[in-house]
Amino acid sequence: IETKLPKVGTTIFSVMSHLALQHKAVNLGQGFPDFEPPEALRDALSRAMADGLNQYAPGIGTAALREQIALKTGRLYGHEVSPDSDVTVTSGATEALFAAIAAVVRAGEEVIVFDPAYDSYEPAIELQGARAVHIPLAVPSFSIDWQRVRDAITPRTRMILINSPHNPSGAVLSAQDLDELAAIVRDTPIVVLSDEVYEHIVYDGAEHQSVLRHPELAARSIVVSSFGKTYHCTGWKVGYAVAPAKLSAEFRKVHQYLTFCTFHPAQVAFAQFLASTPEHYLELPAFYQAKRDRFRQLLAPSRLKLLDVPGGYFQLVDYSAIRNEGDVAFCEWLVKEGGVAAIPLTPFYEKAPGTHLLRLCFAKSDATMQAGAERLCKL
Amino acid sequence: IETKLPKVGTTIFSVMSHLALQHKAVNLGQGFPDFEPPEALRDALSRAMADGLNQYAPGIGTAALREQIALKTGRLYGHEVSPDSDVTVTSGATEALFAAIAAVVRAGEEVIVFDPAYDSYEPAIELQGARAVHIPLAVPSFSIDWQRVRDAITPRTRMILINSPHNPSGAVLSAQDLDELAAIVRDTPIVVLSDEVYEHIVYDGAEHQSVLRHPELAARSIVVSSFGKTYHCTGWKVGYAVAPAKLSAEFRKVHQYLTFCTFHPAQVAFAQFLASTPEHYLELPAFYQAKRDRFRQLLAPSRLKLLDVPGGYFQLVDYSAIRNEGDVAFCEWLVKEGGVAAIPLTPFYEKAPGTHLLRLCFAKSDATMQAGAERLCKL
Ligand SMILES: CSCCC(=O)C(=O)O
Ligand SMILES: CSCCC(=O)C(=O)O
Repeated sequence: IETKLPKVGTTIFSVMSHLALQHKAVNLGQGFPDFEPPEALRDALSRAMADGLNQYAPGIGTAALREQIALKTGRLYGHEVSPDSDVTVTSGATEALFAAIAAVVRAGEEVIVFDPAYDSYEPAIELQGARAVHIPLAVPSFSIDWQRVRDAITPRTRMILINSPHNPSGAVLSAQDLDELAAIVRDTPIVVLSDEVYEHIVYDGAEHQSVLRHPELAARSIVVSSFGKTYHCTGWKVGYAVAPAKLSAEFRKVHQYLTFCTFHPAQVAFAQFLASTPEHYLELPAFYQAKRDRFRQLLAPSRLKLLDVPGGYFQLVDYSAIRNEGDVAFCEWLVKEGGVAAIPLTPFYEKAPGTHLLRLCFAKSDATMQAGAERLCKL
Repeated sequence: IETKLPKVGTTIFSVMSHLALQHKAVNLGQGFPDFEPPEALRDALSRAMADGLNQYAPGIGTAALREQIALKTGRLYGHEVSPDSDVTVTSGATEALFAAIAAVVRAGEEVIVFDPAYDSYEPAIELQGARAVHIPLAVPSFSIDWQRVRDAITPRTRMILINSPHNPSGAVLSAQDLDELAAIVRDTPIVVLSDEVYEHIVYDGAEHQSVLRHPELAARSIVVSSFGKTYHCTGWKVGYAVAPAKLSAEFRKVHQYLTFCTFHPAQVAFAQFLASTPEHYLELPAFYQAKRDRFRQLLAPSRLKLLDVPGGYFQLVDYSAIRNEGDVAFCEWLVKEGGVAAIPLTPFYEKAPGTHLLRLCFAKSDATMQAGAERLCKL
């Protein structure tokens, strides 16, 4: 059988987690917390099972969970959405991203993505017979040059895929960025797909600029988020998409044949937890900012150069003072010889710019951060 | 936005479950048990959460669960597979079916499906820019006329999608059917996709003819199954695919960007439960055969004509003695006026043959069956 995805191997996240286990390295690679979701959430999930909620959930998600998502969206971004027609629960943000692309993008069309880009975007685009048009972000600010975007638009451009806070860099879009984007897509058929899975993790008092804050963009966007990032349970695989009714209708057509519905007891648990403990996500910026600051402090004595981290839970570092080699080779060396798993940036690029940067995850307990930093400081 | 799936509305299963709630009907429509998964399974899931298994599982599934699936496959079908290269855990059988089709089928190609066909097959095929070629099954045996299959093969035929035990009819393929299929695909590039989600539910002492029993077919097939059907937890959304290494490699490329991985605590729970209680699925035929026979007994006084049920947990009935109208109209009337939700067969067809059949699910408690049958006997 000839492959439909010639460029795709096993994702770098799986590869690095596997190497981490094999070499007993401290795993600062794949993005997941090494601490637990709230006990009340786990209890609610167990209760939902005991209560007999073990059969199919509604395909679009339980009414209670969609209601909570709509409430949150209104409260945080001042954007009222209908739980019935605008919110769809998915089996993680990955499914939502795939469904959005499959619902909107056709063979022969183009999707603008910004490099470094999360690795699932391009294969999802290619499986539609469409093409990803890669625009590099500036280094080290990882900001968007909107003139380059304007220049890249063609009659075939169907979608622009943005991601803020950005993985892997942590860069965040500003209100002005959203205005630039709105001006570009105005009077075009371009749909915006906004990957906002780190929406609750922005630092230094900044506000997350969801496209949902921008009525003009909100009217043409599919916004994807994830409970896994927010509630420390990446393995629970519950995400969602918010989009205007017409876009949601198309999204749902695909979603119902991708996974039909999502693990029911977790939906019940999230709905209860969001209703009872809305402050959880309000406390998240301070929670992760303390981790960020602690991690940076621990790495200060190292020969790594730390880039700024405006959002998300990844720290980019420049390792060029340690070894002068490509980031993939460096990460392989690091996991084997240095005892730390990290993520190179090259797999996030169509044409890697040859920076000497790698990504470290600081969604970790103090002990893990210390163990990792100790090893990194020895390099 | 113009739709990519003009033929698709909300699935009949969601529509009917919604109507059932609205009209307080006994829901014998959408296929799910109204009884609970084993308590030990729920306990194992809660324990996995308490044990901190709340972050990403390996994308292909946990090693322990893949091991159990491989053991079962060897034990039941005499087919040894490698848990490392041949087994992939998915977010339900629906995801596995989509991933298999997306991994193999290209734009312009054809996939042979047998009508009545499960409703997710065709949209998954169409999203590849490919075409479903529908071959009707004989009524009322729902058997395959292999000459029609031979006649339907073209140079563009890429896949044949079979489903045994069959939804909605419960028909099962025989060893001879598999030989016929093998002869047809021999020396072609055709991949077989075998939907075997009801593999453990066959009656009257028959053995399930998995394509995995047939070495020649197993070498070119993707076999899909589901824990939801076997362990009474359709809302847990854990399924899997078994395929030779090369096919699995392509399958996994797509799977990793569809959902990346599946709810981790359930994987842990299934692995434990399969290891500790392998007899569960061995007892399933007797368990459901008792339900089937009880349901048929309860319906005997009705004016419905009962078709044979060799497998699965659905009873097809001919309602033409009650009303002479199409099955969609009849099911709408039935849920509103008769107080029972059923599934019409028309949505499973490209060209419905105008039979007066509908599908009733008997994966139900005795009380539910009685309540449903009581209403059906009044018609
Ligand atoms: C789905 S595995 C990757 C998790 C993640 O978002 C990351 O590490 O970037
Ligand atoms: C995924 S909802 C439909 C469940 C099912 O398999 C059926 O009712 O046929």
